[in-house]
Amino acid sequence: MLRKNRIFTPGPTPLLPAAQFAEASFTAHHRTADFRNLFTRVLADMKEFIGTRNDVLVLACSGTGVMEASVSNLTSPGDKILVLTAGKFGERWSGLGKAFGCQVDTLSVPYGQTFSLDEVRSRLTPDIRAVYVQATESSTGVRHDVKGISKLVRAQGDDTLLVVDAITGLGTTHLDVDGWGVDLIIGGSQKALMIPPGLAYCAVSERAWQRMESSKSPRYYFDLRKERKSAAKGETAYTPATSLFAALGAALEYIRQMGNGNLEAGREDLVNNAELAAEMTRTAAQALGLKLFAPQSPSGAVTAIEAPAGVDSGAIVKEFRNTFNAVVANGQGEMKGQLFRMAHIGYYDYLDTIGILAALEQVLAQVTGKPVEFGAGVRAAQEVFARQPETAGAVR
Amino acid sequence: MLRKNRIFTPGPTPLLPAAQFAEASFTAHHRTADFRNLFTRVLADMKEFIGTRNDVLVLACSGTGVMEASVSNLTSPGDKILVLTAGKFGERWSGLGKAFGCQVDTLSVPYGQTFSLDEVRSRLTPDIRAVYVQATESSTGVRHDVKGISKLVRAQGDDTLLVVDAITGLGTTHLDVDGWGVDLIIGGSQKALMIPPGLAYCAVSERAWQRMESSKSPRYYFDLRKERKSAAKGETAYTPATSLFAALGAALEYIRQMGNGNLEAGREDLVNNAELAAEMTRTAAQALGLKLFAPQSPSGAVTAIEAPAGVDSGAIVKEFRNTFNAVVANGQGEMKGQLFRMAHIGYYDYLDTIGILAALEQVLAQVTGKPVEFGAGVRAAQEVFARQPETAGAVR
Repeated sequence: MLRKNRIFTPGPTPLLPAAQFAEASFTAHHRTADFRNLFTRVLADMKEFIGTRNDVLVLACSGTGVMEASVSNLTSPGDKILVLTAGKFGERWSGLGKAFGCQVDTLSVPYGQTFSLDEVRSRLTPDIRAVYVQATESSTGVRHDVKGISKLVRAQGDDTLLVVDAITGLGTTHLDVDGWGVDLIIGGSQKALMIPPGLAYCAVSERAWQRMESSKSPRYYFDLRKERKSAAKGETAYTPATSLFAALGAALEYIRQMGNGNLEAGREDLVNNAELAAEMTRTAAQALGLKLFAPQSPSGAVTAIEAPAGVDSGAIVKEFRNTFNAVVANGQGEMKGQLFRMAHIGYYDYLDTIGILAALEQVLAQVTGKPVEFGAGVRAAQEVFARQPETAGAVR
Repeated sequence: MLRKNRIFTPGPTPLLPAAQFAEASFTAHHRTADFRNLFTRVLADMKEFIGTRNDVLVLACSGTGVMEASVSNLTSPGDKILVLTAGKFGERWSGLGKAFGCQVDTLSVPYGQTFSLDEVRSRLTPDIRAVYVQATESSTGVRHDVKGISKLVRAQGDDTLLVVDAITGLGTTHLDVDGWGVDLIIGGSQKALMIPPGLAYCAVSERAWQRMESSKSPRYYFDLRKERKSAAKGETAYTPATSLFAALGAALEYIRQMGNGNLEAGREDLVNNAELAAEMTRTAAQALGLKLFAPQSPSGAVTAIEAPAGVDSGAIVKEFRNTFNAVVANGQGEMKGQLFRMAHIGYYDYLDTIGILAALEQVLAQVTGKPVEFGAGVRAAQEVFARQPETAGAVR
């Protein structure tokens, strides 16, 4: 059968056609009024999309670049930081902290789990200069309690900053950046914004800007104060990825239309879409007798599912690709072979969600060689969909 | 939930992204070497796609324009023609024949049925100058036996021409234009070629070219001899729809890649894809207790399904649109309200096919207010898919 390119990974995610066309057709030079207008509009829209009054910056790099910026701009060598880690992306914080000479204190929980707030509280000593955490840990499909963690960090006063990697979290998870007092939140273009990789963004609080005045870690390309100054003039410090800005502008316009002219409402619709697709996927997997890897605190961004006993999850990933040209993600690191991950970030609708679940049933039959009750997972997902309060007013 | 634009009508059909980009970026003037190169390559490829050594022409019009050309170029006022009609598109032949002053003899069967070859044979008197038929009747989802009809017409000798409207048939139905001796076969861009409406094409036999020397019906824009002369110089007689040629070039390249470098093999893959999607859809509909409108000779292009007793098919069409932003077709003319039609033409894969069947289950539950066994139709379709001899060598 014909096989379209089907991406179900936690990034890159399916592209919005209107954004692809905007990207393909953009040609303006970056030091012109045309680009400055686009840039200024995108930055203003990004504040609405993130839901913050803080300054937003959009950089030409992957999400990891802004993760580095959040360390190099907010710490000095020898500073004590607390990393909350529950997977491969949590571990990245530790690597970054060490690379910039921080004293890294780690609160680590096993893969598939999240932190208890009591444990976090017990580790929050007054000498901790910044706390680093994910909103959603993409390697395990876990959602962390950013609201609860924020409350604990804010109770420490203004000397402890909170940095949240919401690269897969923004647009899939309800977040109140300003209300909770998040000092630096990070996102990436190839996620809920439905455009290709190449841009990462952050919103930076006043507390964080002040910290930068004294922090002594080396930085140049990722010097956020320099970018802030340029942004005030409608420009970037270095050459921006211009065509991706055009794509981002179109994607934000689409999200605004989803929200009937309101970008924040559109963002909430996008979050609800991911949450519903995630619930349909979890329910379907369980109906098929599969075990969720993170049943306790599952994320709306990505669902991690354990391979059936005796089956390498790599075989599942391979069969998805061979038969359906669909890319689902294997486990990372020591989780490789143990689980596979299906994402719900951004541009997915009912047909995508149901289609990949039906494909999962065919894949399981093929890979396990055991009978699979075709339609059983799909049915469970359909029942979740049918229970929605209103289907008629569906998101466009 | 987010709702992508989902088209499941027998045209327009889903667009191939590579063709959309080729169309969007094309700017060459039509009286230049650039366009002539494209035009000549497309015409040569179209011969391979149709599977003919006859000359192929591509015109700026809808399929109906070339249907008109097949009457105005091949008949003279007063000529007797035989129209085989089994639906709204068969009836279009009668309208065209009358408009050009032909004496129209009609073999008509009820909607949902096809002709018996015995009846066709009994109507084929020597004075009939041309026979007009559809390969697939899109208004009812019926496939006609073009091979059998061709054999009967060819047995009449060279004075009776056979014209086949394969607008939805080409790329969804196995056809051997030259082997069967079809004199003029018609196709349209917004069908299996996966590009927008605006181009129609035909392949014309030597018998048909000779007929044009004597036929006296008025024609100007649709004068095929004029187009043939221009095409020999790499041009069209009048301004061509240039950007659609660029799209068509990209679509043919995609089909060639599907066939591992062979365009005819790619066309056969496309036909098999439609046939499989149609079989999955028919099996699913029956598993849901629905009646097929054309069980006797169903087409691979589109499946017509009767609305359940007491339900207006318009309510089904509306619910598809409201909840899933999916466009399926209502019945046409007196079939309106009685049936709905789901197409399989061109750019559909497993996820699309399964997704719309799952959506059908939700739609039925919503519209009938009666319990529907979610997953029952999907399961039947999955079983059809699982029975395929090889899923691993799936079409790209």
